[in-house]
Amino acid sequence: MKNIDGNLIFDHAPRIASYASAVGKKEGEGPLRDWFDRIIRDSYAGKDTFEQAESELMTTAVRVALNKGDYAQEDIDLACCGDLLNQCVASSFAMRSYAIPYAGVYGACSTMALSMILSATAIESGAASRAVCAASSHYCTAERQYRFPLEYGSQRPPTAQWTVTGSGACVLEERSRITPNTKTAVHQTTVERLDSDDAFLKRDKRPHPIYLHSARLGRIIDFQITDQNNMGAAMAPAAADTIYRYLSASESEVRDYDMIFTGDLGRVGSRLLRDLLGEKGVELGERHSDCGVMIFDEDQDVHAGGSGCGCCASVLCGYILDKMRDGTFRNILFVPTGALLSPTTVMQKQSIPSIAHLINIRAE
Amino acid sequence: MKNIDGNLIFDHAPRIASYASAVGKKEGEGPLRDWFDRIIRDSYAGKDTFEQAESELMTTAVRVALNKGDYAQEDIDLACCGDLLNQCVASSFAMRSYAIPYAGVYGACSTMALSMILSATAIESGAASRAVCAASSHYCTAERQYRFPLEYGSQRPPTAQWTVTGSGACVLEERSRITPNTKTAVHQTTVERLDSDDAFLKRDKRPHPIYLHSARLGRIIDFQITDQNNMGAAMAPAAADTIYRYLSASESEVRDYDMIFTGDLGRVGSRLLRDLLGEKGVELGERHSDCGVMIFDEDQDVHAGGSGCGCCASVLCGYILDKMRDGTFRNILFVPTGALLSPTTVMQKQSIPSIAHLINIRAE
Repeated sequence: MKNIDGNLIFDHAPRIASYASAVGKKEGEGPLRDWFDRIIRDSYAGKDTFEQAESELMTTAVRVALNKGDYAQEDIDLACCGDLLNQCVASSFAMRSYAIPYAGVYGACSTMALSMILSATAIESGAASRAVCAASSHYCTAERQYRFPLEYGSQRPPTAQWTVTGSGACVLEERSRITPNTKTAVHQTTVERLDSDDAFLKRDKRPHPIYLHSARLGRIIDFQITDQNNMGAAMAPAAADTIYRYLSASESEVRDYDMIFTGDLGRVGSRLLRDLLGEKGVELGERHSDCGVMIFDEDQDVHAGGSGCGCCASVLCGYILDKMRDGTFRNILFVPTGALLSPTTVMQKQSIPSIAHLINIRAE
Repeated sequence: MKNIDGNLIFDHAPRIASYASAVGKKEGEGPLRDWFDRIIRDSYAGKDTFEQAESELMTTAVRVALNKGDYAQEDIDLACCGDLLNQCVASSFAMRSYAIPYAGVYGACSTMALSMILSATAIESGAASRAVCAASSHYCTAERQYRFPLEYGSQRPPTAQWTVTGSGACVLEERSRITPNTKTAVHQTTVERLDSDDAFLKRDKRPHPIYLHSARLGRIIDFQITDQNNMGAAMAPAAADTIYRYLSASESEVRDYDMIFTGDLGRVGSRLLRDLLGEKGVELGERHSDCGVMIFDEDQDVHAGGSGCGCCASVLCGYILDKMRDGTFRNILFVPTGALLSPTTVMQKQSIPSIAHLINIRAE
């Protein structure tokens, strides 16, 4: 691959060979409900704790993604996963049931893109032929870790976002490995149902193969925002920086892409992103949407929208990739953002450093 | 690069072009004191909080590593860093002062190896020409986060380890970039002193170029250890698994290496590692040492030894690499281990999943 002014251009364009999403009840009642592979209505997912439930969401997303591609764990050379929990335990506890070489990553809500970029890089280098990437979040684990125990019933300001309970997982594969047989792996959906209420079968037609064309790892941007209930404002400058630099380095324009999906800027952050890019002469117009805005209806009482690693991961590995497979989108930018704070840094009155990673995903 | 039974063989053998370490007072009084670049005696490192002090350790290690190699931040394509703090904030707050594309990684105390392996993979793929890798820990941040506030003065059992206050950083460089000029970059040590008490100048002779030959990413191993005061026991099986598989896949033996350095198994974990490998017919003999045992003297009251991301990072980027540059070691295995727990999983009575990543480092 090549690095052109920070844009990473894949020589072999790793394919997204398979993908799956698993979400909670509220997400399963939202506008994207038909695109999730699993909707687990129990907040505990049948486990003893919310943390174990989050791991279960990731385990489920990974298992379904492997099943849909008909992969055994021996077929996978690398697992690259992350989440929001302290010490990233949702991922490590989820992945201990797999004997796959494991790389933990942390990019807050941008984790899914970071995981995919590092995995694709490993595939390009020859270190891996196939890699599984996953990210997760859970409303109940995030609330008590970042903010207050749920029992407090704390009030949320209008700028606050609602952490998505969900996980997305995908299998990246080196291009030479794609045989006519595995090429249609995603197509041959043989998803076992958890039970009739909790599962959706994909409606499969003739799918378009999907691949990673290029990517860009973000830099840490700190605009001195200190309000942890306004993550969108903290993260928008990072998204603007990464998108602007990617467009410049690739000499492309917004209209060259069917859609630019940010991760979880929410309504407030999305407006800021438009303003920041507008100041630089980049008009997003109708070609921008935000996973945090898409995943919930306004009447679901989530204020500024959804957030969390699981937000963009489940929207990507559900709605977006399905819409690429059916040909609705052929060329998109996936740009999740992450707020690199912790409750300790907030209490210590530090500002919120943020980051945005970008992937250009294309369908043939 | 090639993946042979999980061993990653670098085609272009990325060089360790520069490296540096910064540690705290206790580490600066230990047996490896002459090999650290900076000893910062103030626990706060002149900052307001211990967390900021940990970031300052990493910033210092990165700055000195860049200075020693005479690199500007524009020369670096990728920063790959991690630490033990919740949401890895020591790293993200340290690296926000650099405008370098940033990938956060988490492997608990194995983080330094994970960072180097992913960076070397990015270099092999062409995504980066140079990458900076760093990891840090701080006794005071780790104690209050994982165990109790320092003010409690809680008693420590004999199996407990002492979190190292320190950071190590290195610059990896693609081989074709090595010109006669930069080849000796580490040699031309122009380290500015913080002040006369706090800095050591390297004693430079004619250095041997150091490079990464191969590596292995570990799998998550869970031997159902639940005692968070006995991390060595939790991590030893992971180290045994990774070392055994690396030796098998490379068809090499312990005697082929000058030394095998584990990260921070401590005295208890090191004995377990010898037993576990002995059962498989692999005798470590005199060729094993552990960074957690090396960094402190027994009379420094650290019980089973040192631990933390900064332990193996500072020992590698101090003593070990210096000993490779001067020709004492020509071929080593660096095998840090990580305990992938969090205080929450401990309170929830979960066991401790562990991991070990391995790098074969060679000197010409």
